[in-house]
Amino acid sequence: MSGSDSEVLRARLLLGWLAEPGSRPMHELVAKHGPVEALARLVSGGGPKDLTAAVATRLAGQDPRRVVEHLLAQAKRLGATLLTPESPHWPVALDDLKRLDERDSCPPQALWIRGHIRLDEACQRAVAIVGARASTPYGEHVASEMAYELAERGWTVVSGGAYGIDAAAHRGALAAHGITVAVMAGGVDRLYPSGNSALLEKIAERGLLISEWPPTAAPHRVRFLTRNRVIAALTRGTVVVEAGARSGARQTLGRARKLGRRVMAVPGPVTSSMSAGCHEELRRDGDDGARLVTNAAEVLEEIGSVGDDLAPRPQGEQRAYDSLNRTELAILDATPRRPPATVAAIAAAAGVSALHASVALPSLELRGFVRVDRGGRYRLNP
Amino acid sequence: MSGSDSEVLRARLLLGWLAEPGSRPMHELVAKHGPVEALARLVSGGGPKDLTAAVATRLAGQDPRRVVEHLLAQAKRLGATLLTPESPHWPVALDDLKRLDERDSCPPQALWIRGHIRLDEACQRAVAIVGARASTPYGEHVASEMAYELAERGWTVVSGGAYGIDAAAHRGALAAHGITVAVMAGGVDRLYPSGNSALLEKIAERGLLISEWPPTAAPHRVRFLTRNRVIAALTRGTVVVEAGARSGARQTLGRARKLGRRVMAVPGPVTSSMSAGCHEELRRDGDDGARLVTNAAEVLEEIGSVGDDLAPRPQGEQRAYDSLNRTELAILDATPRRPPATVAAIAAAAGVSALHASVALPSLELRGFVRVDRGGRYRLNP
Repeated sequence: MSGSDSEVLRARLLLGWLAEPGSRPMHELVAKHGPVEALARLVSGGGPKDLTAAVATRLAGQDPRRVVEHLLAQAKRLGATLLTPESPHWPVALDDLKRLDERDSCPPQALWIRGHIRLDEACQRAVAIVGARASTPYGEHVASEMAYELAERGWTVVSGGAYGIDAAAHRGALAAHGITVAVMAGGVDRLYPSGNSALLEKIAERGLLISEWPPTAAPHRVRFLTRNRVIAALTRGTVVVEAGARSGARQTLGRARKLGRRVMAVPGPVTSSMSAGCHEELRRDGDDGARLVTNAAEVLEEIGSVGDDLAPRPQGEQRAYDSLNRTELAILDATPRRPPATVAAIAAAAGVSALHASVALPSLELRGFVRVDRGGRYRLNP
Repeated sequence: MSGSDSEVLRARLLLGWLAEPGSRPMHELVAKHGPVEALARLVSGGGPKDLTAAVATRLAGQDPRRVVEHLLAQAKRLGATLLTPESPHWPVALDDLKRLDERDSCPPQALWIRGHIRLDEACQRAVAIVGARASTPYGEHVASEMAYELAERGWTVVSGGAYGIDAAAHRGALAAHGITVAVMAGGVDRLYPSGNSALLEKIAERGLLISEWPPTAAPHRVRFLTRNRVIAALTRGTVVVEAGARSGARQTLGRARKLGRRVMAVPGPVTSSMSAGCHEELRRDGDDGARLVTNAAEVLEEIGSVGDDLAPRPQGEQRAYDSLNRTELAILDATPRRPPATVAAIAAAAGVSALHASVALPSLELRGFVRVDRGGRYRLNP
């Protein structure tokens, strides 16, 4: 790979715009030549035939340099952060998408992000809650309760920002003052669907609004399916709360399954067509089947064990501290032995935002560094 | 074993009364010495200590001969049939209970039966539908619909005659003009619970009311648990429709599992405590878990495959006919090559009751002897 950080970022931004996200030919070209060289080849007409033709169509004679300047200006205007696989804060979980073998399932070239917290930190302990747009009050109630309880325990709730189950999940997490991430299928400036615009604005303020598509990109139907792999990859598991027989939420579940993430479904009345898709997933044989979950505790039973695998209890103190990033070390240094302190007090002492601290402390607790009491106050684990 | 048929029947009746059904010491004594000799030893005080003491307590100085005469008179008065393991019509599926290793899980010594059809035939294709007494309208609706559709397809619906899910299942089967069997935990003259007495009378008329306990025996609480093993053993699988966390229906499911029968549960709203027991069963790991079923077709997917195992498609015609009992042969002889005939017409031609024919024909169809059309008319399979 060659090119300065800035050159690479610009190349990734353009590559993410020149072909639809997830494209395998694009992924393979970039894997072979690096983003800068891959872009040069595509723009000069020297890439794989079909991809080069698609790129030329989308570029439509525009100067690539002007396009990228325009994209960067949009990012600035929106206050959006840009992440590429080269960024230190890129969520490594997304790299698992390389394992999928569908045509449109490769990792993103770039992510557009609105919000004030770090995506990689937010997704250290994240769970996806997805489901039907045409949900029932039952499904919305369950999604919202489940999201509330998971967020309350420091888990980030990831969903797709759609009507119905998605919106209920986001709302539940927000109600718990937790972190929620909406993965969009169009530009992060397009608050789609419009009926959710107030909710999406709130998510951008208190959580994260992310997309692989640049601003103004329209949420085409196929993009929702492409987008779903990011929801599956960013999280330790996906819970489908309600789904009709042909719901897109089931595709997210399929992607999660292929990624080795936990696959869960909430049952409902057998008389409800909105639970039919869940029941079909629960009826699949053996390892292909979803796990039945009825509440947040059961979700944690599933993803908690995966979490233990991902973050094994450290053996020695020296090695343990090696696994911490700078923010976590700062927070750990700021956590008292006794008496326990609030998240806000620890954040203030560490010089990090309360949101940062509220993401890092539950993760530190999971790894045995700190303890939390019933009031949500933390102290060092002796 | 020794003793005339009548002596053996009388001994079994007494043995079934002298100790609580399912007793392992009783079962082992009878297995060793046969019913007549076992009875003689017990009455003379020569059986195993605890069992002999219990028997003496129950007999309380009565003359065993007078007791058995009284039991036989009661059977006559009630029009009840008596079945023992020696009877040609004893359902052999009950012998599987020998495999269970609980203290109270041995096969019955005798069955008291009210009804006009043969238990062994009725249970050739039988499924248990059980559940909570304190059911919800949702659970009752599902139980009743499922029973209706299973009965309509020629399956016998077995349940426990209780309020709630049991009653809904019996009613559904009756509504489909199907066969239903209520396995009671007290005498077949005690229509318990009294609120179900009209239903139980109807079951005695059109299906079967059966019990291991002699007439007048009260349905003690522990007897329901003992009784459950008979529901599990008589059927190819048990479906629990609604169950609280500590429901007795789950014990039936556990017995079915140990007997190698199919174990199924209907999901419901996670907000309903009456579905909590079902969800717990569905969440059990691997082979211990119940299969999720949402309708009759899914139940048949489960028990149908077991059925194929039980009744393998015959290889040659001669061998095939050997597997048929007298009634089935009569019905087969009465079934036309063409055009297809109704169950009633075939029954009339065969000289058997319509109920007999309606039990035997689906079984013959399963084994490939006859075909059924959409109108429920049968013809020979060429």
